[in-house]
Amino acid sequence: MNLHPLEDRIVVRPAESEERTASGLVIPDTAKEKPQQGQVLAVGPGKRAESTGEIIALDIKVGDTVVYSKYGGTEITVDGEDLLILNGRDVLAKVVK
Amino acid sequence: MNLHPLEDRIVVRPAESEERTASGLVIPDTAKEKPQQGQVLAVGPGKRAESTGEIIALDIKVGDTVVYSKYGGTEITVDGEDLLILNGRDVLAKVVK
Amino acid sequence: MNLHPLEDRIVVRPAESEERTASGLVIPDTAKEKPQQGQVLAVGPGKRAESTGEIIALDIKVGDTVVYSKYGGTEITVDGEDLLILNGRDVLAKVVK
Amino acid sequence: MNLHPLEDRIVVRPAESEERTASGLVIPDTAKEKPQQGQVLAVGPGKRAESTGEIIALDIKVGDTVVYSKYGGTEITVDGEDLLILNGRDVLAKVVK
Amino acid sequence: MNLHPLEDRIVVRPAESEERTASGLVIPDTAKEKPQQGQVLAVGPGKRAESTGEIIALDIKVGDTVVYSKYGGTEITVDGEDLLILNGRDVLAKVVK
Amino acid sequence: MNLHPLEDRIVVRPAESEERTASGLVIPDTAKEKPQQGQVLAVGPGKRAESTGEIIALDIKVGDTVVYSKYGGTEITVDGEDLLILNGRDVLAKVVK
Amino acid sequence: MNLHPLEDRIVVRPAESEERTASGLVIPDTAKEKPQQGQVLAVGPGKRAESTGEIIALDIKVGDTVVYSKYGGTEITVDGEDLLILNGRDVLAKVVK
Repeated sequence: MNLHPLEDRIVVRPAESEERTASGLVIPDTAKEKPQQGQVLAVGPGKRAESTGEIIALDIKVGDTVVYSKYGGTEITVDGEDLLILNGRDVLAKVVK
Repeated sequence: MNLHPLEDRIVVRPAESEERTASGLVIPDTAKEKPQQGQVLAVGPGKRAESTGEIIALDIKVGDTVVYSKYGGTEITVDGEDLLILNGRDVLAKVVK
Repeated sequence: MNLHPLEDRIVVRPAESEERTASGLVIPDTAKEKPQQGQVLAVGPGKRAESTGEIIALDIKVGDTVVYSKYGGTEITVDGEDLLILNGRDVLAKVVK
Repeated sequence: MNLHPLEDRIVVRPAESEERTASGLVIPDTAKEKPQQGQVLAVGPGKRAESTGEIIALDIKVGDTVVYSKYGGTEITVDGEDLLILNGRDVLAKVVK
Repeated sequence: MNLHPLEDRIVVRPAESEERTASGLVIPDTAKEKPQQGQVLAVGPGKRAESTGEIIALDIKVGDTVVYSKYGGTEITVDGEDLLILNGRDVLAKVVK
Repeated sequence: MNLHPLEDRIVVRPAESEERTASGLVIPDTAKEKPQQGQVLAVGPGKRAESTGEIIALDIKVGDTVVYSKYGGTEITVDGEDLLILNGRDVLAKVVK
Repeated sequence: MNLHPLEDRIVVRPAESEERTASGLVIPDTAKEKPQQGQVLAVGPGKRAESTGEIIALDIKVGDTVVYSKYGGTEITVDGEDLLILNGRDVLAKVVK
């Protein structure tokens, strides 16, 4: 199955076990929002600008590793794999290793 | 009976039993929003752009399989069949099999 | 008495007993929003576009049968008959039989 | 005392006892919003369009009978008479008898 | 002390005891919003229009008697006198006696 | 330490004990919002207009005494002194003595 | 690991123990919002202006010390270090020592 996101949405495969420090200690959850990382599997064409009607491409490419807000996005199970559909605005930063 | 959606609305026939994995295990509901799939039966002409007044056609066609947010949409029973009227913005992605 | 709706409002006479299936079974109410049908009795001139100041006519005509959101609209009793004043944006689809 | 409403506001004298049917039966209140009728006593010059800066006159004249949303408006007592100051957008329809 | 309101704000000296009828009866408070009257002591230069950047002067002058929404405004005590700083949009009507 | 506010923010040193009348009586707090006064220590360059992209300078200067809404602003302690960072829109009026 | 913030987001390393006065006394928390300081580690390219489509660079540079609202931002742990991803609009002021 193949997902083609609409507008400024992207499909992300969440990375696992990011909630520990470099030394391997597990960070307990606090009331603060914590982002998560994942790999971008598909990117929509972009959203139409309200003023000009022009489509604005996202600054995100397939294969990018992104940090996103944990409260954004919609979970979807594709071929037994748990993926996320996010809005482009839920992506906070790209990770360059 | 025939439904002609207005503006950027679409009529969708929800697919059944999507909430299990490829291996057939049922996924228990969590607090997270889960999308659903369906087939597009009718598509509105599109919404008028606020800035230019031009009608913007949807990037969705009759016959498309779409993933949509479970909290969007309005249920309607047509000829004994349960359908959904969605806004175009509630559609997250198209599925290409 | 004659009602002339302003802007993009319409006057609708709600149809009765739409909440049953083709085979006649009554559908119990769930927490989900269910639309209703009705016949359009009067249509306003349309809303003024914010950007251009131009009046945008509604894509709805007197005599149309429309499906509308149950939570929209204002009830009004005219000559002993219960009618609804809706915003054009509360109309989801037109029904062509 | 003379009231000059600003912008798109109007002054309305509410009609009395509209909440009964043609045959004279009193309709009990339900949870649904019910509009009321009144006569227009004064009309503001209209609101300035955000895009063009032009003042848009209201489609309501002094002497009109209007149906308005019960939850809109501000009560004011002028010379012992209870009047309402409404926004133009709270007026749903004009009544032509 | 002299107050120079910014943007579309005005300074108002509230009139006293407006909550009685012409015949002198005190009107008990209801849940409905009731306006109050006052005299305008100072008027700001007006707000900048979002589209054109032009400053739009208020249609209110020093010395005007205005009716305003009771829930708007900020109380301030100047030289032992209780005044109100209102936004221009909280003014419903001017009173011409 | 020197604070350079961004956009339309300003830094204010709150005046003390403004909540009494000219005759020296302390005014008890009511449920109504009461403004406070302070002296402007720093002013940001202004906000960018959404329509034109032009930066709009604030109508407030360093040294001005301003009345501001008590619920706006962010407290900050600089060199042992309690200051406030306000948005320009939280300033209601300038005080000219 | 290297973070490239998108749009108008920035990455900040929070400064420690700012909640005491110049004389070293710890300030107890009140219900009021208190800002925090930090050093800017990375700055996004800026947000696209809605009206013109042009990208507006932030007035913040890598190395700046900024005061930001405590309620804004998303915590992220990078290489065992707790950082914050903020929106540019959550930054209140720059600190020049």
